[in-house]
Amino acid sequence: MDAAEFRKRGKEMVDYVADYLEKIDKRQVFPDVEPGYLRPLIPDCAPQDPESFEDVFKDIEKIIMPGVTHWHSPYFFAYFPAASSFPALLADMLCGGIGCVGFSWAASPACTELETVMMDWLGKMISLPEEFLAGKDGQGGGVIQGSASEATLVSLLAARTKTIRRVQSEKPELTEADIMGRLVAYASDQFCATLGTTPSCSFDKLLELGPICNKENIWMHIDAAYAGSAFICPEFRHLLNGVEFADSFNFNPHKWLLVNFDCSAMWVKKRSDLTGAFKLEPLYLQHQHHESGLVTDYRHWQIPLGRRFRSLKLWFVLRMYGVRGLQEHIRKHIRLSHQFEDLVLQDERFEICAEVVLGLVCFRLKGSNELNKELLKSINEAKKIHLVPCHLREKFVLRFAICSRTVESTHVTFAWQHISQLATDLLKAWEQNNHQQHQQ
Amino acid sequence: MDAAEFRKRGKEMVDYVADYLEKIDKRQVFPDVEPGYLRPLIPDCAPQDPESFEDVFKDIEKIIMPGVTHWHSPYFFAYFPAASSFPALLADMLCGGIGCVGFSWAASPACTELETVMMDWLGKMISLPEEFLAGKDGQGGGVIQGSASEATLVSLLAARTKTIRRVQSEKPELTEADIMGRLVAYASDQFCATLGTTPSCSFDKLLELGPICNKENIWMHIDAAYAGSAFICPEFRHLLNGVEFADSFNFNPHKWLLVNFDCSAMWVKKRSDLTGAFKLEPLYLQHQHHESGLVTDYRHWQIPLGRRFRSLKLWFVLRMYGVRGLQEHIRKHIRLSHQFEDLVLQDERFEICAEVVLGLVCFRLKGSNELNKELLKSINEAKKIHLVPCHLREKFVLRFAICSRTVESTHVTFAWQHISQLATDLLKAWEQNNHQQHQQ
Repeated sequence: MDAAEFRKRGKEMVDYVADYLEKIDKRQVFPDVEPGYLRPLIPDCAPQDPESFEDVFKDIEKIIMPGVTHWHSPYFFAYFPAASSFPALLADMLCGGIGCVGFSWAASPACTELETVMMDWLGKMISLPEEFLAGKDGQGGGVIQGSASEATLVSLLAARTKTIRRVQSEKPELTEADIMGRLVAYASDQFCATLGTTPSCSFDKLLELGPICNKENIWMHIDAAYAGSAFICPEFRHLLNGVEFADSFNFNPHKWLLVNFDCSAMWVKKRSDLTGAFKLEPLYLQHQHHESGLVTDYRHWQIPLGRRFRSLKLWFVLRMYGVRGLQEHIRKHIRLSHQFEDLVLQDERFEICAEVVLGLVCFRLKGSNELNKELLKSINEAKKIHLVPCHLREKFVLRFAICSRTVESTHVTFAWQHISQLATDLLKAWEQNNHQQHQQ
Repeated sequence: MDAAEFRKRGKEMVDYVADYLEKIDKRQVFPDVEPGYLRPLIPDCAPQDPESFEDVFKDIEKIIMPGVTHWHSPYFFAYFPAASSFPALLADMLCGGIGCVGFSWAASPACTELETVMMDWLGKMISLPEEFLAGKDGQGGGVIQGSASEATLVSLLAARTKTIRRVQSEKPELTEADIMGRLVAYASDQFCATLGTTPSCSFDKLLELGPICNKENIWMHIDAAYAGSAFICPEFRHLLNGVEFADSFNFNPHKWLLVNFDCSAMWVKKRSDLTGAFKLEPLYLQHQHHESGLVTDYRHWQIPLGRRFRSLKLWFVLRMYGVRGLQEHIRKHIRLSHQFEDLVLQDERFEICAEVVLGLVCFRLKGSNELNKELLKSINEAKKIHLVPCHLREKFVLRFAICSRTVESTHVTFAWQHISQLATDLLKAWEQNNHQQHQQ
């Protein structure tokens, strides 16, 4: 395929993606396929000779789409949102076209420098303390990781290296292995200090944890993967109070800030803590400026060596939505979750299981876990909407997460009416069942 | 931005990317900017109100492009290739549009199943032993990681978990920390067993290492990040002999197989070694089939939880090039590296520093490291081509890597004439300098 054909096919693909997203509400949100559906549909091995774009293209609807869970359907209320927006898609096209691998400043200066400045923009949007920003000569700064898991791992490894070095300087007789065996990482069952846990979107008390960590010389990492995006709204920023005690902080614009996966934003107060743990300097990666202190070489801030030009997505989204546009998006989602909460509260058969703070509602039928498992089963088998469950203190709970960029009040109303009807059917069947068992 | 505007802007972006790649040889391969160039060009913080696409678009040429190192220029001979092709760009557009997060089978069955089958296709293309393939009921299988670093880390963690469990079963009195402190990872200064090292593309002797690892119960991981793509050509497959002794194997189609970053292909013989180390089963990620043994949940195979639909890129590229098309690409690159090697060998002032096996030529001026540093400096300051150096046994060496998909014989000839002329100028200046010093 040459550039001329790419112009033609690229435009067809733009239309296909636009069609897909515009009419996604017409597709069944969860697929009908069974495990192993795909293998029999395609050949055993790659073709020897090239196939045409048409051949590949027609297989998208035939082979791929029947097995897709439509995360951007307004009827998708599972997990947490996966961000998606048109400006981010455009930026990713540009990122692919440039195709640079930004492991060092010299490998593409724009790739590194835009990332540093975008992370400052984003940090300012959530009023992160100045110490976390790079500015012109700050000690801190931000980096885009692939996922919150990677951000947590990077923090853990940096904390470990820092602690080992501190202990070694105090007790030079200890080996690294001696020290390693005595290190402790404190975590709840959601791991590190978390703002907005996945099961119920609950919040750790940073103002209690933070001073203890600082006093005891414990690295404090805060994960706000989902909730972090809400801190761009002043009315939710108080949830981040205490971040000033942290060494590192992370949230995922690829969850809730309309930046397509992957874009996990991580900040540290001391960039030297990361570069101290990960620095890698083979000759082929050194460049004119690498020891000048003037440049950032992001490979020292992460596990992988290679990295894409992901800051373009942030740049496009932040500019084309503006802070106000993004705040509107967050506020709409939170409004819709409260709408759903109100509907649940008006129905005496149901209970709300955790405070609704952001875009997630945890709810269940009053009654047994079995009953609620049956309800979820009937919801997900009907495939009109899609939900996943969680456990909260031994209780089996249904999670209703506001996810899609295009979800509106009508979709929430529909979802509730549907759930409510399925609950009515289910309770009737259970009653009949109980009645019959009683008679026997 | 709505779908209608995306249709318009998306097509403009397709044209921009096509223009960029079509005329990339007209751009200076390495940028002129100095560290910190970008920050003064853009505002201090994100705009409150939305900006138009036009505003953002015009800043691409104004702010971004002046700071881009053009990895796909036919004058780029640095590092190793970063793969790029039009089919892969199209697939990435589709991947962004679908925007699923495939951490489990249920999160998008097509995302998981296409990946498993594509990894089988790719494994067959390089004649990997059957044990590494998933097939319908194999014990092994492949997974797409983000980078070779992640593949290596995943192998290391899986090996560690496996070894700790084995030792614990033999000596239950030992704690995990006791065992951990005694574990040893064997590696050369390029780390694990490597096929095609970055400095000089040299090859470890798998047929010697492998039997020792197997006998001593040592996990053997083979990294062929760059070289692996060449094994699709029968005449280079022998370089992979010995892979049958390995537990895990990895190479990067995103380097040399025309699949845009990121796509790092990793296979294991026993998938249970990975899932044993990484299994994570909160209720909200469980699904109808998760314990059936019928499905793959790829989150157990990697560090991150989230993952994009990256197998689409492989599917598009393998089908639209065909095995023959990809073999042609590899063979062209290797032919061009030998062309450059011949040119170097014809000039008595130069020497070749490592056997030219694939697409990399390591060469230098006969003489001091200082002289060669000066030569590289004059090459990279002229900015007509771009190279990076390496160290080989204390010697400062220049690496000439065939990188761009569109590089041709004429570009290699131009590059050599340019290097040769700069060497002539440099040697003349050094002689004059020596002469003057001698006279003083």
